[in-house]
Amino acid sequence: MKTYLDCIPCFVRQALEASKMATGDEALQEKALKAVLLELEKTPLKNKIPPQIARKVHRIIRKVTKNNDPYAKVKDEYNRKALKMYPSLKRTVAESKDKLLTATKLAIAGNIIDFGPSSKFNLDKTIEDVSDQDFAINHFNRFRKALKSSKKIIYLGDNAGEIVFDRILLEELKGKDITFVVKGGPIINDATIEDAKFVGIDKIAKIEVVSNGDPGTGPDRLSKEFIRKLKGADLVISKGQGNYEALSEVDANIFFLLKVKCPLIARDMKTKIGDIVVSS
Amino acid sequence: MKTYLDCIPCFVRQALEASKMATGDEALQEKALKAVLLELEKTPLKNKIPPQIARKVHRIIRKVTKNNDPYAKVKDEYNRKALKMYPSLKRTVAESKDKLLTATKLAIAGNIIDFGPSSKFNLDKTIEDVSDQDFAINHFNRFRKALKSSKKIIYLGDNAGEIVFDRILLEELKGKDITFVVKGGPIINDATIEDAKFVGIDKIAKIEVVSNGDPGTGPDRLSKEFIRKLKGADLVISKGQGNYEALSEVDANIFFLLKVKCPLIARDMKTKIGDIVVSS
Repeated sequence: MKTYLDCIPCFVRQALEASKMATGDEALQEKALKAVLLELEKTPLKNKIPPQIARKVHRIIRKVTKNNDPYAKVKDEYNRKALKMYPSLKRTVAESKDKLLTATKLAIAGNIIDFGPSSKFNLDKTIEDVSDQDFAINHFNRFRKALKSSKKIIYLGDNAGEIVFDRILLEELKGKDITFVVKGGPIINDATIEDAKFVGIDKIAKIEVVSNGDPGTGPDRLSKEFIRKLKGADLVISKGQGNYEALSEVDANIFFLLKVKCPLIARDMKTKIGDIVVSS
Repeated sequence: MKTYLDCIPCFVRQALEASKMATGDEALQEKALKAVLLELEKTPLKNKIPPQIARKVHRIIRKVTKNNDPYAKVKDEYNRKALKMYPSLKRTVAESKDKLLTATKLAIAGNIIDFGPSSKFNLDKTIEDVSDQDFAINHFNRFRKALKSSKKIIYLGDNAGEIVFDRILLEELKGKDITFVVKGGPIINDATIEDAKFVGIDKIAKIEVVSNGDPGTGPDRLSKEFIRKLKGADLVISKGQGNYEALSEVDANIFFLLKVKCPLIARDMKTKIGDIVVSS
């Protein structure tokens, strides 16, 4: 998905929130925010997708505030919170008529734990709502079929905390050869390998890292090498808006599972804010 | 009121909205928005109040887009819309037990017509709500008394459309020597002398202009000359957030009438978004 002019105010708001999480020093917050303003001023939007710019923004915040992981606290908080919910989520799936559907919906509900579009969200309400909510884009039957015939699956994770909900879905896919992809370094509240291990994903899937934009944090999510891997899988499950922004134009067998939280993604997908989506 | 770091994302959003109103040319919108990013990067926040920065932002938009009045259309729309409401608003006041209270509340309801904090608002609902809404800061009795003993009143107007609601209140102040202050040139949807004449304020009050920040648009709202005038009045009625931001620290007999629309003003006034305020 291309970067719209409307992304700019959103990047600036995100930069402010990240600076505040990174440091209590207001002068440093101002310095970081202004460095982002300068970067956004210099960056041509054309031929850039939003995650490419988001990387730069958050790299600047980490660098200027000298805080390598501004969202560490909320990531830990939501990993723990979601782990506490795990037994009751498992019960919900076990008691449901259609376990795969329920697990898929829960995995999408977990996608609300996203500090990119907003630092204000209501996890409990989202979990409650999702059970009665229809998919705004409903390729679920296609998804179920594709899962049946697939052996090699790549699952692109999104946020810390959310990955507990992914674990619920992963546990419904037993017997498959699954690679769970996380970031190679901190960016916003995206899950890293530490998060994946903390919530036990390493016991059900192989884990692979892609770059957060910093050197040495793994192959790039947009690199030819990585795209080739996605194409080589029987099926790719892509969680969240960032992965959609990066991969919406890639020709592979990708199913995008997400909750719509951004007005531009809503427009791009012809959906509304708050909608849930399984889109191939 | 001082400028907070939180004002920055809001200025950027405002700049984007203004650019879109100013021109349909996306390249020009980007150019204008980026010029604003650069200006915000250069501007130290310390010792600056938000209206000083807002002026710069909107001056840049007007200059880069070569559109001297990006909000002309919505200003005209809301002047006309409010004028159509005028007879029913007058009836509401006439039929009320406490005419001054009703007119004051309506003048505050009209303050929702503010394209600064957001271009999305619901005028009809605000008018409806306000009749049952208590003031979050209630110096209304003090306001009533001060009006009784005042001859020379300065009324600082805020937005186009809103000034029809101000006219309702002005008409309850008959016999006073009233100066109604508007902007000397376009900025956001602030009322100018043309707006004031269009809705008939010139028939009930003298009109004076203060600068929108452009050269030749009158004395500055923050100038010693203007502050001296405010101090010389028996009573100053100040409408809206911008005037509060500019004058909250000025030692004159000012009553701030406004609807709270910004989280920082809410914090500064110890109120909530949506609250209505009569504060001396």
